[in-house]
Amino acid sequence: MSLAALLEALPIPIVQAPMVGASFDALALAVSAAGGLGTLAIATLGPGEIGPAIAGLKAQTDAPFAVNLLMAPKVAPEAAEVDRALARLAPWYAGLGAPLPAAPNLFAQDFDAQLAAVIAAAPAVASFSFGVLTAAQAAALRTAGTCVVGTATTVAEARAWAAVGADGICAQGFEAGGHRGHFLAEVEASLVGTMALVATLRAAVDLPVIAAGGIMDGRGVAAALALGAAAVQMGTAFLLADEAVTSKPWRRAIATAGYEPTRLTRAFTGRHARGIENRFMREMKGVEDEVPAYPVQNRLTQPLRAASAQADEPETISLWAGQAVGLARPGAAGDMVRRWWAQAGEVAAELAARTGRGSDR
Amino acid sequence: MSLAALLEALPIPIVQAPMVGASFDALALAVSAAGGLGTLAIATLGPGEIGPAIAGLKAQTDAPFAVNLLMAPKVAPEAAEVDRALARLAPWYAGLGAPLPAAPNLFAQDFDAQLAAVIAAAPAVASFSFGVLTAAQAAALRTAGTCVVGTATTVAEARAWAAVGADGICAQGFEAGGHRGHFLAEVEASLVGTMALVATLRAAVDLPVIAAGGIMDGRGVAAALALGAAAVQMGTAFLLADEAVTSKPWRRAIATAGYEPTRLTRAFTGRHARGIENRFMREMKGVEDEVPAYPVQNRLTQPLRAASAQADEPETISLWAGQAVGLARPGAAGDMVRRWWAQAGEVAAELAARTGRGSDR
Repeated sequence: MSLAALLEALPIPIVQAPMVGASFDALALAVSAAGGLGTLAIATLGPGEIGPAIAGLKAQTDAPFAVNLLMAPKVAPEAAEVDRALARLAPWYAGLGAPLPAAPNLFAQDFDAQLAAVIAAAPAVASFSFGVLTAAQAAALRTAGTCVVGTATTVAEARAWAAVGADGICAQGFEAGGHRGHFLAEVEASLVGTMALVATLRAAVDLPVIAAGGIMDGRGVAAALALGAAAVQMGTAFLLADEAVTSKPWRRAIATAGYEPTRLTRAFTGRHARGIENRFMREMKGVEDEVPAYPVQNRLTQPLRAASAQADEPETISLWAGQAVGLARPGAAGDMVRRWWAQAGEVAAELAARTGRGSDR
Repeated sequence: MSLAALLEALPIPIVQAPMVGASFDALALAVSAAGGLGTLAIATLGPGEIGPAIAGLKAQTDAPFAVNLLMAPKVAPEAAEVDRALARLAPWYAGLGAPLPAAPNLFAQDFDAQLAAVIAAAPAVASFSFGVLTAAQAAALRTAGTCVVGTATTVAEARAWAAVGADGICAQGFEAGGHRGHFLAEVEASLVGTMALVATLRAAVDLPVIAAGGIMDGRGVAAALALGAAAVQMGTAFLLADEAVTSKPWRRAIATAGYEPTRLTRAFTGRHARGIENRFMREMKGVEDEVPAYPVQNRLTQPLRAASAQADEPETISLWAGQAVGLARPGAAGDMVRRWWAQAGEVAAELAARTGRGSDR
């Protein structure tokens, strides 16, 4: 089935964003069961774990769902660079009473092997961030019956995905929480607000667009669809869901964030990501451009963030969140999806009535 | 009349954004005549010119219109700082064969005197950027029958405007072209995408919101209204209008910008503003944080930009534009306004039909 047809056939065109560390099968299942499209965030799974994870979800639902992989570059950092980065993190580990980890051998899962596992497991949709597939990789997914969605932060990136045969584009606006998905230009040239990004992508690229960034309720859903998106992708809006596995300090930070702006930081992972500012982000700000690039720094801070979550300490964990985090509310994910869609319907009806006034002129 | 009532009574809830150097009375008149709300950008007018300008527009239309002032701080820079800044600009002036100006005595119009002139002239709406009025100033405008609109880039700024008694908020999203209106926090903490900004302002502040940033056509209008905006403000979308006084090189840059991202720069005016990147922006990037703060640098580059416009040279003029500039089209402003509104109506009807499918579940 084409992605356009799949999204059109969804009872509710709301995609649950992949969120490593906050979302897994329960959240994906709840969203797909409610009529949306759940996403299994499988970036941290080893190739051998991917098949069973996808098969497990397929066994629990007939509804379509997506999986998401992060295209981590293959890295072999010099030992000295890793040692410097660990030395910089040592006081942070000490502050939590956690042991400084040894230099790891593996910094990220092998993407090619992960991709082969996804192709074999054939989920309905596979989305990708941080890079672009080759045409052969995209073709292999499509042959397996999997729709390919590429994450783009600019029109140029969307065109790159179109050129390799993607079925659709996830347009990641500036507002979006978590990692930026840019891969062609530096981050400063890859920050486009959702409103502008969806509007320009629609005009420039003839593929279905899934709008992401700043969408928190039925008003946002209606707005993104009005812009011409085929569906919306929501992440932060699900962080307080019963089915999300958001850690305790992260959850508390989301619930109390209010309307203070979130920030982009490179300090946690070596790749820019948006979150609620905490002490780690503030105090690392001066050196964040010097930390090793993703996935190295990401791997080196993983035990720190795990220890921080364990200790219920919000100051040394990544508190990823989008710019409208103040609108996140708790509840069952399925109820959220249905409520947002009902609200989108009300908003659309009001809008039709209001604009009707103008059409009569 | 309250701002809410005024916007509600507008045949078309589209506000033409103030654009110093690109918009003046012809554009404002055309937009108000078409049923929208034109804005006279009077920031560069002397106090004695403001009354006649507003009276002149009132004589030509019974429709309401707005005026906009920029709240430039009073400055008295040291001579050495001005000399350093001029020395840095000297090669740019020389490149155009234009004389390096002498150090000016006046860097911006006196805001208090401008405000007094606006109060005396009593336009229907006055909007303000770069700061927040005192409660007494806002009250004086309201007593004169003028609705007060404050520009906010964050929820905190909108709350500051609400606290002094503003009638409404212009929510300036990250996407917007030209100067950023932030005034409470530094620019990095004042960049919120339109989608997130409108959604959070609506929730946090009980005032009508005029959404700005990335809105280029009827889809954008429908999207912003779906988010809960009372009206939209569009600037870049008018830059190619017949009635705009956009300079020739600026107009050409807009028409050929395509979908390359715009950039924020401090180099032209000492205040961050968004535009199409050119040689001046690129080559000044390394020192842009060192140029004198607005309005000093703004004043020092004015003759350079005027000479550049005169010479039809796009590389040394500010090419302000929002992030969706690639969607700008030429035409008569009144036709644009009517076409966008008709399109918003079509989009709303489609959206109502689509979401209706979900409501039936």
